[in-house]
Amino acid sequence: MDTQLQELTQTETAKPGTSIQIFAPATVANVVCGFDVLGFAVNAPGDEVVMRVTDKPGISISKITGDNGRLPMDPAKNTVSVSVRHYLESIGRTDLGLDIELHKKMPIGSGLGSSSASTVAGLFAAKTLLDDQRDVAQLLPFAMKGEEMACGHGHADNVAPALMGGFVLIRSYEPLDVVRLPHPKDLWCAIVFPDVDVPTREARQIIRNKINMKDAVTQWGNVAGLVSGLFMNDIGLIGRSMKDVLVEPVRSMLIPGFYQMREQAMELGAVSFGISGSGPSVFAFTRDEQTAHNITHKLQQYLTGMKINSNAYVSTINDAGPRVI
Amino acid sequence: MDTQLQELTQTETAKPGTSIQIFAPATVANVVCGFDVLGFAVNAPGDEVVMRVTDKPGISISKITGDNGRLPMDPAKNTVSVSVRHYLESIGRTDLGLDIELHKKMPIGSGLGSSSASTVAGLFAAKTLLDDQRDVAQLLPFAMKGEEMACGHGHADNVAPALMGGFVLIRSYEPLDVVRLPHPKDLWCAIVFPDVDVPTREARQIIRNKINMKDAVTQWGNVAGLVSGLFMNDIGLIGRSMKDVLVEPVRSMLIPGFYQMREQAMELGAVSFGISGSGPSVFAFTRDEQTAHNITHKLQQYLTGMKINSNAYVSTINDAGPRVI
Repeated sequence: MDTQLQELTQTETAKPGTSIQIFAPATVANVVCGFDVLGFAVNAPGDEVVMRVTDKPGISISKITGDNGRLPMDPAKNTVSVSVRHYLESIGRTDLGLDIELHKKMPIGSGLGSSSASTVAGLFAAKTLLDDQRDVAQLLPFAMKGEEMACGHGHADNVAPALMGGFVLIRSYEPLDVVRLPHPKDLWCAIVFPDVDVPTREARQIIRNKINMKDAVTQWGNVAGLVSGLFMNDIGLIGRSMKDVLVEPVRSMLIPGFYQMREQAMELGAVSFGISGSGPSVFAFTRDEQTAHNITHKLQQYLTGMKINSNAYVSTINDAGPRVI
Repeated sequence: MDTQLQELTQTETAKPGTSIQIFAPATVANVVCGFDVLGFAVNAPGDEVVMRVTDKPGISISKITGDNGRLPMDPAKNTVSVSVRHYLESIGRTDLGLDIELHKKMPIGSGLGSSSASTVAGLFAAKTLLDDQRDVAQLLPFAMKGEEMACGHGHADNVAPALMGGFVLIRSYEPLDVVRLPHPKDLWCAIVFPDVDVPTREARQIIRNKINMKDAVTQWGNVAGLVSGLFMNDIGLIGRSMKDVLVEPVRSMLIPGFYQMREQAMELGAVSFGISGSGPSVFAFTRDEQTAHNITHKLQQYLTGMKINSNAYVSTINDAGPRVI
């Protein structure tokens, strides 16, 4: 993975006192059949970073809100500051002083790419303050450094769509090869986060290392079908392809009422239903906004009946990635 | 699999004495990373069927050429006649008499979909004689019956592209779901058949039943990359994606000098190189015709040096499928 960028030569930008506020989107990784290779960004929820240029070299974190004290304030341990530091080192701007305020606007450990959204917001803030004109995709290796710290693996299926927006395929890690995929414009996404604990590390560990070739063939037929459906604007094909015979049967055990929720969502007209990332959030694709709302409403009712708190979000796919707010 | 078509009502067509000659194309299944789900048709080689309406109900085979006596003349045992019989039964036309001449114009057991080409030629001949206006894709289940007899498995990755032309994804078998994919128009295919014996059944048996999840993820990243490259007309992405970490390492052992041939093809400018179907044929994609000829020339020289006879074919992708000649 190439984490060496050309040095940034302009020094006119990023004067002390300048500040910027950035939103970066939540993301749905795996997308049912595309374990570790597919992800997409949504318009809500997301995280916000306020970054201010200071006159003292180095990165500080002055405030974190919305995390219930769960995230480290130490810049050496926070994924946002660590990623930004790697970026500044790469472009030869460790002379810079940056202060970070992180505002968590989405649940942590939800399977919605919470750490990725924060990291991408931080990196995009630094890039924008520095007026760095490079393509945003070049920040990906730095964002992956943050992921490595957050979940023990430098996965890109959350950071890549959070950074680039839209639907993203990570074809390969060695070397890193990322492909932006199109998608139907009228595809809506209903997300429900049941507030139960599913740590990413454990959700990975329960997945079998050895699988049947037959199941793998079924899976890559579906991955190919999903990708084709995205290119062909064929929502029917997208729905038929979003089946997971390998990971979902295992991970769904960590999500109370998963199959009941799926049945309810499909009955209400969902195109597809599955686990977002490693869960516990679940998501459904729908053909319109109302169906998405009907689904989140029904699933939240169901979870309340099981005495499980939940959050819900309805959104189209976010094509822009991070943005200044 | 649905092998029940609506009955064909018109009886004006297919008068005794009427005859037709059909060409159906050879096919490259798997396409390196897409084991059991991808295939494409080429313009050369292919098989030919001459079909004649007789006045005696039932299917007969009067002649087979080019097979060195290897194919059964018994209509109950030949894949062409068996497939055609299933088709006639389905449309309620077992009253019809059809005589088949099969002209093998390509090697048997080559990994180029030899039996599929013959079967598709036969089915398309019957459909054309009967003036059956249904979409050609509806013949697929009958062609798969032939495959089942030929190789013990009703696979569609040869028959589907032979029948429909172009690049085809078999997303699912249960239910059968076939998607036609686009491809760059200037993609050339160089095929070399080394005349060594690799029976399809054995080539399947040596493939491991249990595989690593990690390798499967690599594979479906590549399948998704290849499909994306086809839609995006991105020959670079197509080439990068055509890697097989699961099947090729095992099957290549049955092909003398496989890795040397790959090295030679890539040095001459191939976009990608791999095994066609279960082998022993190998193929390379190239960006132009001359490069394809350079590759077949070089590989045939190399095989001659190992005292192995070979056939070579250079062609673009066949988008038409079977045709009247």
